[in-house]
Amino acid sequence: MLYLIGLGLSDETDITVKGLETVKKCSRVYLEAYTSILLVDTPVLESYYGREVIIADREMVESASDEILRDAQNVDVAFLVVGDPFGATTHTDLVLRARELSIPIQSIPNASIMSAIGATGLQLYNFGQTVSMVFFTDNWKPASFYDRIRENRSIGLHTLVLLDIKVKEQSLENMARGRKVYEPPRYMTVAQCTAQMLEIEEEKRSAGEGGVYDEESLAVGAARVGGKSEKFVSGTLKQLCESDEVLGAPLHSMVLLGRRTHELESDYVREFAVDKEIWDRIWKRDYEGKQ
Amino acid sequence: MLYLIGLGLSDETDITVKGLETVKKCSRVYLEAYTSILLVDTPVLESYYGREVIIADREMVESASDEILRDAQNVDVAFLVVGDPFGATTHTDLVLRARELSIPIQSIPNASIMSAIGATGLQLYNFGQTVSMVFFTDNWKPASFYDRIRENRSIGLHTLVLLDIKVKEQSLENMARGRKVYEPPRYMTVAQCTAQMLEIEEEKRSAGEGGVYDEESLAVGAARVGGKSEKFVSGTLKQLCESDEVLGAPLHSMVLLGRRTHELESDYVREFAVDKEIWDRIWKRDYEGKQ
Repeated sequence: MLYLIGLGLSDETDITVKGLETVKKCSRVYLEAYTSILLVDTPVLESYYGREVIIADREMVESASDEILRDAQNVDVAFLVVGDPFGATTHTDLVLRARELSIPIQSIPNASIMSAIGATGLQLYNFGQTVSMVFFTDNWKPASFYDRIRENRSIGLHTLVLLDIKVKEQSLENMARGRKVYEPPRYMTVAQCTAQMLEIEEEKRSAGEGGVYDEESLAVGAARVGGKSEKFVSGTLKQLCESDEVLGAPLHSMVLLGRRTHELESDYVREFAVDKEIWDRIWKRDYEGKQ
Repeated sequence: MLYLIGLGLSDETDITVKGLETVKKCSRVYLEAYTSILLVDTPVLESYYGREVIIADREMVESASDEILRDAQNVDVAFLVVGDPFGATTHTDLVLRARELSIPIQSIPNASIMSAIGATGLQLYNFGQTVSMVFFTDNWKPASFYDRIRENRSIGLHTLVLLDIKVKEQSLENMARGRKVYEPPRYMTVAQCTAQMLEIEEEKRSAGEGGVYDEESLAVGAARVGGKSEKFVSGTLKQLCESDEVLGAPLHSMVLLGRRTHELESDYVREFAVDKEIWDRIWKRDYEGKQ
C-alpha cells in the first residue's frame, strides 16, 4: 500500500493520530521536502516516528518515482507531505503512476494552508483561486498571478497568495560546472511579495493594463499559520512592505482582500492592523457595503 | 484558554496528536454538532478522549456562547469542530466574543473539506469560491448559488458545492406548539444536489438568464472524503442524478468542473467515471485545451 500522509503545517505533533499510527507501521518513509517545510527538522520527525525518513527532493519525486513505489504492492510505503497530500500537483502524478502499477493507495488528509488561512478570520467561502508568487530575478518576473488576481477581484473575492520557497537550488555557476553544491534555503516574506506585487502593478499601469490593486489595497500577512507562534498583520500593501520584522520567521503567506469582504471579517482582521485608523478609513471608502 | 480544535473529517483518529493532547487536559469539552458531523458517534469520542463531551447545537453557540466561555480566563476549554475550526462563520463570532472577554485563544487546524477535496485529483489552485446547497422545499428554493457558479465558470474555475445537513430540526407544527421534538437528521446527497441544480438551470433558462451549466456538464461526486470508505463518482450532472447507490452513506459533496480543467486532472478524475466513453466525448468537446 502507498500511504499519502499529510503532516499539517507546524511541528511533529500536527500529524493526525491515524497518520502517526500508519507511519509507524510502514517499511519505508519518504518526506516530500520541496513544496513546503515544517518548522522542525527531519531528525525530530525520525525520533518521533521511530523510523528513518528519506528526503524526497523534486528530482526524486518527478524522475525516480518508481524507486519510491518499489514493491509497494507488497509492503507499506509512506509518502509524507507537509500540509495536505493533495495540495501540490506533483503528488497526483505519483498516484497516477501507482495506479498503473496496481498499487493500492490511501491518503490521510491534514490541514492545508488553503483552509488554515481561515484563521485570519477571512471566510473561506469568499476566496477565489489561489495564486503563487515566485522570487523575481533581474530578467525573470513572471506575472501570471496578476491576471488571476484580476479575475478574483472582478468578482469581489479574496486571493490567497502562496510564497516561493527555494530549497536545494544550485547557483548557475555550480549548475554549469556540474557541482552538486546547493545554495542556502530561501523563503519569501510578505514584504518581498507585496513589493513584487506593487512592481507588477506599476508595470501594468505603464502599459495601460493596470488597476487591479494599488498601494492602499487591504491585505493580511500571515506567518507560521497553525503554529504556536502564528502571527497575522493586516494593512495596506504599502504597509505590508515593511511587515517582516513583526511577522518574523518563515513560512509566510498573504491574502489580498476582495471588495465583497463582510463586516464580520473586517472586524476580525482589523485586530491585526498596523494602524487601525488607516484600516478604518480605507475600509469605509473602498470595501464597506460593496457587492 | 479557549482551544478551537479541528477534528478532521472521518473518525476519532483524525484528530492531530497536538489536538488530542490538548483535549485531554481541558476542563470542559464542547463539540460543535450542526455544521458538519464525523462518521462516528459522540460516545466513541468521549471514551477516546477520556472526557465528557458537551454537544453544542446552533442555539448554544449563537445565543449562549458565554456559557461555553465561562471562566476560560482561568481554565482550559476545548471547542471541537469537525474539519477545520475556521470552516464556518459561526466560530469567528465565538472568537470575537472571547477577545472581548480577554480570553486567550489558540486554534489547532485540521483537514477541511475545502482542501481535502483535492483527493478528487482536481487541483485546489483551480477552484473558485465555494457554494452551499440547501434542501429545497415547495416554497423555498434559494438560488444564490447559481450566480456564484456563474462567476466561477466565467473565469473557467471549478466550484465546490457543500451539501446541506439538517440536525435537530423541528417540524413547523412542533415549532408552533413549542414541542422540543426533533426530526431525524437528513444529509443531502449528490443526486439531490444535482437535481436541484438542474431545476434552477431550467428556471433560469425560462427567464432568459440561464446557460451556466447543463445536463452534460462534467462533475465529481464525493462521499466520506478522508475516510476509509471514501468514494468518488464522476460524470455528467444528469448521470450524477443517479449516483446515490454508488456513493453510499453521507457525507456527500460535489465539484462542478471549470472549463480550465487541466488534462492531468481529467486523467485522474476519469478513473471514477460512470461511463468513460461519455466522459471522453464531453471532455474533448467542451473542456480539452479551453482557457
